Parts: sequence; structure tokens; C-alpha cells
Amino acid sequence: MTTELTHAVLPESDIPTHWYNIVPDLPTAPPPPLHPGTKEPLQAADLAPLFPMALIEQEVSTERWIEIPGPVRDLLRLWRPSPLSRARRLEKALGTTARIYYKYEGASPVGSHKTNSAVAQAYANAQAGVKKLSTETGAGQWGSALAFATQAFGLECEVFQVRSTYDSKPYRHVLMETFGATVHSSPSDLTNAGRELRKRFPDTPGSLGMAISEAVEVAAMSSDTNYSLGSVLNHVLLHQTVIGQESIKQMAMFGETAPDHLFACAGGGSNLGGIAIPYVRENLEGRAAVHIVACEPKAAPSLTQGEYRYDFGDTSGMTPLLKMYTLGADFVPDPVHAGGLRYHGMAPLISHLYHEGMIDAVAIGQLESFEAGVMFARAEGIVPASESNHAIAGAVREARKATEEGTSPVILIGVSGSGQLDLPAYQEFLAGRMADS
Amino acid sequence: MTTELTHAVLPESDIPTHWYNIVPDLPTAPPPPLHPGTKEPLQAADLAPLFPMALIEQEVSTERWIEIPGPVRDLLRLWRPSPLSRARRLEKALGTTARIYYKYEGASPVGSHKTNSAVAQAYANAQAGVKKLSTETGAGQWGSALAFATQAFGLECEVFQVRSTYDSKPYRHVLMETFGATVHSSPSDLTNAGRELRKRFPDTPGSLGMAISEAVEVAAMSSDTNYSLGSVLNHVLLHQTVIGQESIKQMAMFGETAPDHLFACAGGGSNLGGIAIPYVRENLEGRAAVHIVACEPKAAPSLTQGEYRYDFGDTSGMTPLLKMYTLGADFVPDPVHAGGLRYHGMAPLISHLYHEGMIDAVAIGQLESFEAGVMFARAEGIVPASESNHAIAGAVREARKATEEGTSPVILIGVSGSGQLDLPAYQEFLAGRMADS
Repeated sequence: MTTELTHAVLPESDIPTHWYNIVPDLPTAPPPPLHPGTKEPLQAADLAPLFPMALIEQEVSTERWIEIPGPVRDLLRLWRPSPLSRARRLEKALGTTARIYYKYEGASPVGSHKTNSAVAQAYANAQAGVKKLSTETGAGQWGSALAFATQAFGLECEVFQVRSTYDSKPYRHVLMETFGATVHSSPSDLTNAGRELRKRFPDTPGSLGMAISEAVEVAAMSSDTNYSLGSVLNHVLLHQTVIGQESIKQMAMFGETAPDHLFACAGGGSNLGGIAIPYVRENLEGRAAVHIVACEPKAAPSLTQGEYRYDFGDTSGMTPLLKMYTLGADFVPDPVHAGGLRYHGMAPLISHLYHEGMIDAVAIGQLESFEAGVMFARAEGIVPASESNHAIAGAVREARKATEEGTSPVILIGVSGSGQLDLPAYQEFLAGRMADS
Repeated sequence: MTTELTHAVLPESDIPTHWYNIVPDLPTAPPPPLHPGTKEPLQAADLAPLFPMALIEQEVSTERWIEIPGPVRDLLRLWRPSPLSRARRLEKALGTTARIYYKYEGASPVGSHKTNSAVAQAYANAQAGVKKLSTETGAGQWGSALAFATQAFGLECEVFQVRSTYDSKPYRHVLMETFGATVHSSPSDLTNAGRELRKRFPDTPGSLGMAISEAVEVAAMSSDTNYSLGSVLNHVLLHQTVIGQESIKQMAMFGETAPDHLFACAGGGSNLGGIAIPYVRENLEGRAAVHIVACEPKAAPSLTQGEYRYDFGDTSGMTPLLKMYTLGADFVPDPVHAGGLRYHGMAPLISHLYHEGMIDAVAIGQLESFEAGVMFARAEGIVPASESNHAIAGAVREARKATEEGTSPVILIGVSGSGQLDLPAYQEFLAGRMADS
């Protein structure tokens, strides 16, 4: 029986003590990353110039549960457990027979799920004696998360922000600067990669792939600077599994066993992985049969339109080769507002799950995503991030289908962040000036 | 004994069922509002052209507890109870011997305490068959709260936003428009009051007093439009008492009896009243001895620099005469970033409490407020609203004093809202371009 609750709020003692690593539970192992020179499987030592050993160990771990260090868990207490809520007013607005829930990560410092991994990465680097982290950011959510986390552990932070969002969402870099970070519009003229990219693509809006090239170069050139990535890699998805672990407990507080459908937006894959991977385990162990749907933008449809092959994670070819669904490392997505989803590839782990048929995917257009976002904002009082609107749109499709068919499925939406700093995009949409894509 | 808790989170069943009206508990009655023509005490009927009877009854009520209507309480569940947290990392950053707590209203729809009254006012007007509400907004927090609340109850909403924030904080009116409201920069040429004010003060940055004149005129000219005020009046402060009622329970969860000092920012007085009035009752009944401090901006220091006399609530002299601390209805504060505090007067109820020595007040400069705000953001991961920074600065002063004196007082801060949409102000501060005042 479901309850009358609106929000399921867990006590602090229910913040997960461990990250969940799905690798040992998978029927087949995901293909390893390859060294770009030798094309041989990458060795842990190959990653040492960029990452501290603690994160490399997490990246290649085959342990099911990895303990969250105390200082990281202490910092997570600032905003975790995050709420999981019944979207009663959205249900009413849709007139749907479905029951809709959402897990909201937007109440974290800086307003998205990204902080979950940022604090883990900043801590591991601080422990290893690193002085500075360099990184890329698309919408600015990851950059501001890392800016917050680095200052919490006494590190410096240098961020390469994709040009299109640096210009269109100026508040984001102020937020990073408020936390003490240095921010550049990318491609910049501060790196070899940036200068070359500006020559090759003079009027480019930038891309996550380009910004990664710049940030990796900065870290590779300095002995006390490491690189930090906000998505794609195993250890990043690992840090995000706190979302799904909490969700499983919270759905039970509503009297629901598990959702029938789970929708989460997917760019690099960290948000989707965070909420979905613990549910993949539920499915594998027969406790649930959750239909997991990656909601990607039509502007960067790596899962639904890309090829499954080895490719570089960045535009300049500086990263290891990753087996993933990719649109090609050179692919520059249209400058849509969901800057966090403008990535040419998809996390190898998510790509593997998709390839094995364990998750599903849909591509959502920009206009459909904002229609859903405005409806959600008016109903639930939360303006969702442009990225999250894709997940909401996927859920709205499913809820409408259920109403037509007279069924009552349980739908869970992973709302990855707040859209307060995306308001210029909402303005364009409301004024009828937004392009579809 | 205090606990290790970071956030005290109350269950939904602890959302207050009643608003607390302090009037019957006061040793002396606050002076009544006067009719501007007759100078006689105002009658309930005088307010009927602007407000529905349910709100007029709340305005003049002498009942101690007024039940919160079911549909209002249902909507409050979207974000209440709000968290009350121990600012452990701020304490560490200050190296203070004080214990610091904060009640955070920024997680509400639109990001401030204003939503608490907006839903109550929109509901009462909808019940009375009103079709539209007109209002003013300073920083945009009240306007966006009312925009959310009106659409929730099927009303239209027209907002006059003070020119200086309309221009400097453009995201705010997009937020109102996302919720379906119409927004004008004030003074506008849409009203007689606006046109006259533009003639008298051609280059004015606008003020709350001017915007109130415009909104009142719109309501007075139309039979199906009412006016809605976001602060100052008794019924608005009444709606905000849910904040203080929750705080009392939450401080107990930390093992604290009551704070020794309570800091809250004060412009019109609704935020201060909301958290402080339930503590005034604790003081009156001998359960506590809370030192309550109104933190006002040096740019609009009504309590610390104003006169206690009858004055108009607006610039054009359209409202009843209110007995309050005032800088004069003509006073136009400097366009500081805490737009929500740029009011020439102070709520009559707060003015009365101050006059009777039941609360204290300090004036805080803009630079000191932002220094405190940045420190808070870096420590707690929450960028506070420009208004809230005044309360944080007051608390920081007290915490430093305690450390010098070797005492360990309990300090509670009312953090009225989120500053994500105030980031241009943070940018000015970080760049060293912010003027003091």
C-alpha cells in the first residue's frame, strides 16, 4: 500500500557507507580501456600522471563494495540523503494513472548530483599531496561542484568551461569563482590543445571533448596538478551510486517495491549510472524488473545513433581509448542548452550495459524537454536543470502512454539538478525563440 | 547534551497546523493603522477593495492560533518543514567557541521564505473568487513566490519589479515568467502612480515604495483584481511564523533549549517576524531569553536610524497610515544588492516589538554582508541571498566576540533564501568592484 507522504526523507545515518561497484556482478566483463600508443589494455601506472592511486584503484576495482572515506561522508552530510518525492501535482497536471516519483539532486551545493563525485575526487587528491586539480565543465555543474570540493580540502582548481555555456550562462562561472576557482572559456589560448582547436574550428561553440583536451594538458604538464573528470570513468559512476542506493530505501518508504520505469538524463553517463546501477543489481538479483531508460539529447545521441567502438574521450586524442557508443571524437554537438549532455561518447560502463540489453535509451528533442520542464516547475515548484528536463520528458511520454492504456505503472525520474542558473534557456523557450534539435 | 547531527529534519507531520498570532500575547497592543483621509483607526471594510475578507480577518485577529487551511498546508508540504542545520564548517572556518545553527528557507520553490505567505494569500484570494493578483517585488523573491502560488490556485499574476533589480538580476523575472506571471520594471508608464513617479524622479532606480503604489493602483482600478503584499502587514508576518515554530522543535533535536542570539535580516520585516515571533513568545512565557537581532542594511536603516511615527507604506501615499519606524515614504535607498531590504519603513508589528525593547537591531554595510556570505558559501556549500548575508554578518560579529571573550553562546541565523540568482552581486564583490554603503 502506498502512503500519503510527499517526500521520503532518510536520516543522516542512512547515507550509504559504501559505493557500489557493479563490475563483479556483471555476467560479462566490460571491455578494458586501451593505451592509445600500444593498443594494449591500459595499466594502472599509465593513469598515474593524471590521477591519484586511490582513484585508479577504484577505477579498476573488482570489489563489490568500496568504503566511503570518513571525511568524504562528513561532507556528503551537508546535503545527503537527498529527498525522493512523489510528484502528486505533476500527476494531477498530466491527469495520469501512473504514480510518479522523483529523486532530486538539485539541493546539493551548486545544485546537481556532480558534488557527489567532486568531494570524493578532491579528497583522494588532497590525501595524495596534489596541490591543484584541472577539469572541464559543460553546463558548469561539474566545474562548480569541483570548485566547492577543492576549496573544502584546500586544493586549487582550474576549470575549462565550454565556450557556448561560458557565454550563455554567465552565472555559472561566477559560482565557481565564489568558491575560489579560476575559470577559462574553452577552447582557450592557454594550452597547445586549445590553440590548435581554435585554428581548426575558429568559430566553434566548444565541446566537452575540447575542454577535456585542455584540462588534461594542464595536468600532464605540471607535477603537482592532477586532472579530474566529472563523468564517463568507472570511478565517477561509482561515486554516484549513493543516489540509487538511497532511492531503493526511499521507494520502500512510499510502500513501493521498485519502479517499473526509471528515467535519467545521460550525457557522459554519471547521473544515469548513479541512480540506475543499483537498480541494475536489483534486476540481476531478481528483486525487481526495472525498465531503465537513458534520456539523451537529440543533439548528441551517442547511444541511439552512435557506433559501439573504441574512441578517444577527448577531441585532441590525449586520453586512453575507451570502448563506448560514440559519435566520433571530432563530433561537435549543436550548442543546445543542456550543455552537460553535449558529449560525443558515453561512459564505457553504461555503453556495456546498453550493449548487453540491460538498459534502454531514447533521444529527446530540446523543445519537448523544455515543455516537460516548465510543466514540472509549475507543478512541483522546482525549476529543473536543462539536462534533467530530458528525463522528465521521457517520464511524461511514459505517463501519457499509461493513461491511454489504462495502466498504473510506477515511474521514477532522476532529476539531476536545479535549473535556476539555466533561466536564460527558459526565457528563450517561453518567448518561442528556442530552436528544436 | 548536543548531538552529532548536521541537519535536523522534521517529518511532514510536524508542519505547523496553525499560524501563531502574537497580538493577544503582547503586554501592550500595537497602535492601529489609520485611514489616510479621516486619520481614524482603519476599519476592516476599508481594506476590502484590496484584500479578501479571510486575509483582513487575519490582519486584525486577536486569536492566538489561526488554523492553516488544508490546501495551503498541502502545498507547504512541497518544501516544509525546512531544514535547520548546525554550521559546523562555518564554526571551524571562524575558529569560534560559539555553536552556530541556521534555519534555511532557500530550498522552497523560488528559493526564499516568501513562498510561505504567497501560498496562503493566493489561496484566500482564489477562495474569494478573485481572478488576478497584483504585487510589487524588490529582489524578485516575493514576485516569484507569488507567481508560483497564483498559478497553483489558478490565478493570474502581475508583478511590478523595482527597476534596479529588474535590470541587475534579469533571471528573477524569467523565473516569474516561467511560472506564468507578467512582470514590469517599476516605475512603469502603465499606471498613473508610475508615470508621476517617473516625472518626479526621472533616473530613479525605483524602490519598493514606488512599486507598491503601482500594484495598489492596478488592484484598486479593477473589480476582479486584488493586491498582495509580501511583507509589512500582520497577516504576512503571521504566515511566516511556521519558520519559528519549526525552529523551536529543531533546536531541541540538537539538544539545545533555545538560542542565546537570533539573527535575521529585516527589510519589511516578514523574514525576521517569521523566525523571531515564536521566540518572542518563548521569551514572554519565560521559557527562553533569546536576544533577537534585526539585521538591516545601512542603505535602509529604518529601525536604527528612522523615526517611530505614522507614515505611508508606499511612495505615492495610497496605503493606510502605519505606525512604524520609517525613513520617510519619499526615501529612496541606494540601489544595493539586497533589493529585498530596500524599504523605507518596517512592519508595524516589528516596530512595536523594537519600541518596547523586545528585539534589538543592527545596521550592516554591504561589503561586510558579502564577506560573511562568501565565507558561509565556502563553508556550508550554500550561496546565501544578498538579504540573508546581513543576518550571517551579524552572527559572525557575535561569534567573533564570543571567541574573544571565551564564551560559548548558541547562535541561530535565519537564512531567508538562496543567492543563486544574486550571483552578479557576488561577481562584483569578488572583483573588488562593490561599493560599501
